[in-house]
Amino acid sequence: MNKDILKQIAQKLKEAETVLMYPHVVMDGDTLGSSIALCIALRKLGKKAYILIEDKIPAYLFFLEKDYCTYDQQIIDAPDVSIAIDCSDIERFLERKEKFLTGKVSISIDHHMTTKLFADFNYIDENAAATSEIILDLIRLLDVEIDIEIAESIYTAIVTDTGNFQYTNTTKHTHLITAELFDIGINLEKISVEIYQNIRLEQLKIASVVFDNMAMLYNGKGNIAFVTQEMLKTTGALMEETEGIIGTLRNISGVEISAFLKEKRINEIKVGLRAKTYGDVSAIAQAFGGGGHKKAAGCTLYTSLEDAKKLVSDAIIAHLEEADKKLRRTGN
Amino acid sequence: MNKDILKQIAQKLKEAETVLMYPHVVMDGDTLGSSIALCIALRKLGKKAYILIEDKIPAYLFFLEKDYCTYDQQIIDAPDVSIAIDCSDIERFLERKEKFLTGKVSISIDHHMTTKLFADFNYIDENAAATSEIILDLIRLLDVEIDIEIAESIYTAIVTDTGNFQYTNTTKHTHLITAELFDIGINLEKISVEIYQNIRLEQLKIASVVFDNMAMLYNGKGNIAFVTQEMLKTTGALMEETEGIIGTLRNISGVEISAFLKEKRINEIKVGLRAKTYGDVSAIAQAFGGGGHKKAAGCTLYTSLEDAKKLVSDAIIAHLEEADKKLRRTGN
Repeated sequence: MNKDILKQIAQKLKEAETVLMYPHVVMDGDTLGSSIALCIALRKLGKKAYILIEDKIPAYLFFLEKDYCTYDQQIIDAPDVSIAIDCSDIERFLERKEKFLTGKVSISIDHHMTTKLFADFNYIDENAAATSEIILDLIRLLDVEIDIEIAESIYTAIVTDTGNFQYTNTTKHTHLITAELFDIGINLEKISVEIYQNIRLEQLKIASVVFDNMAMLYNGKGNIAFVTQEMLKTTGALMEETEGIIGTLRNISGVEISAFLKEKRINEIKVGLRAKTYGDVSAIAQAFGGGGHKKAAGCTLYTSLEDAKKLVSDAIIAHLEEADKKLRRTGN
Repeated sequence: MNKDILKQIAQKLKEAETVLMYPHVVMDGDTLGSSIALCIALRKLGKKAYILIEDKIPAYLFFLEKDYCTYDQQIIDAPDVSIAIDCSDIERFLERKEKFLTGKVSISIDHHMTTKLFADFNYIDENAAATSEIILDLIRLLDVEIDIEIAESIYTAIVTDTGNFQYTNTTKHTHLITAELFDIGINLEKISVEIYQNIRLEQLKIASVVFDNMAMLYNGKGNIAFVTQEMLKTTGALMEETEGIIGTLRNISGVEISAFLKEKRINEIKVGLRAKTYGDVSAIAQAFGGGGHKKAAGCTLYTSLEDAKKLVSDAIIAHLEEADKKLRRTGN
């Protein structure tokens, strides 16, 4: 990506008096941590800056929020700058889309490969492990000193978006940046407690129920599990608290492909798919009108849970059979 | 720690023709990864070098072992150098202790604060997040080039001993080293799959059963869970597969102190204790004849499981009550 665009973005921000930031819905550590880091920097420069949100801040990120976020679309009338942060698509802030377009200048900063160029200035660097890596560069271009609060927001964004430096988006650069954040004095213990030692009991309960109902497929090379509205009601868990389950399904020894089905409502089943090494779940998702990457994809099926389980199980088995055949042909 | 000692150790290794390495029992990623990294380096220098072990290599570390480890105490008769790696005490390689003392020179390299100085040369750096950070320095002093295999062993040691850079032993230096290892070309995906995506189904099952039987204490500020031999038999899980459970118990929102009781055999209950922020579980463990740190401690109770549950629960409740009183007194 051409760094000149980031410089132009910094210039536009320097000239602005009012700025509204737009994280994506179903907020995660990167979209919110990046937004908060930039918001702090802009306020240090004397700008009127807010993060406009439309859904709930997840509990593990409460510690970052100190009056930066607002649901009030009137907080700034027609801001000098609108910035979408970590949003691959304008549809990822649907309820705020029209407001976004009232910005005199619109900007998008992201690290997703599939990001659409929907703003006046788009800086998309798919080599960044997290959008916050770009935001850190941007804050430096704004000549704002990185204080502990900014550093902790950036760090939170990095650890959550890299699965604690474990996902393959992690690079040498990610670790070098993190070393710098340690230098600034982030409180690792506090952040770890907030992010990882803050699991609701109900979340553990729903995971137990889901694993108890998991089925293994094709000699343990596949597995499928599901969550129903009834299961949520019984355990008191929220649907969003089932987010990590698909990863655990895939982490089981010997499993290559995992599926996790969420009953959003009757006859609307959201399907998450993961592959471990050689599988290609984007092919399975596409066959059902969905999409994604080889190792992480999804689709929605408008059918009963039982039918969805059958359809997805059959597709996984067929995919694993096909992969086995290929492996035999190539003699591996 | 005086770096001169590490230089002297490097000199002793350069002069040696035969070297035996000693990881501690109940091997983890740091003790084994560090040993393997050093073994590769010594072999590159033309030394006869082996890692002498007395217990099983954990499955998630199989990928590192390529004929470096042996159970054969006669593989080298009286080695020029014996090196204990990541061992806080000579008792941590009990079955190999006498063999260790047959080394013409004995060395201990470790990062534990409580390490006893049992060797001729002891290099203990408690600021190192993992012993492997020291081993990397040592390999450089040996003038051996860090190849991918050495880098992957060191990386494995670091990620496992820091809980993926999450524990508070993690430092700026840890991230700087890791950045260098990325430069050498470690295969992050392969390592992550081996270490984290290799969970036996039986391990998930035992966790489910344990959480189903967990009890919350003192308004959810404490919790206690247990595993019996019967539960292991029913699920097919191994006792070692319950290692991570105590961490999850503590990770529950609102919980300050967690206890996990392992029924080793009838009337022998091993108790693990964890505190999240202000609790001091070493005090609880000491009262039962055990020990440890403020946030991680343990003891063994020679009584029935039911009695042990009662004793530990009462101690946790008393400790939390006392802590509450103190907090009230200080007005926090």
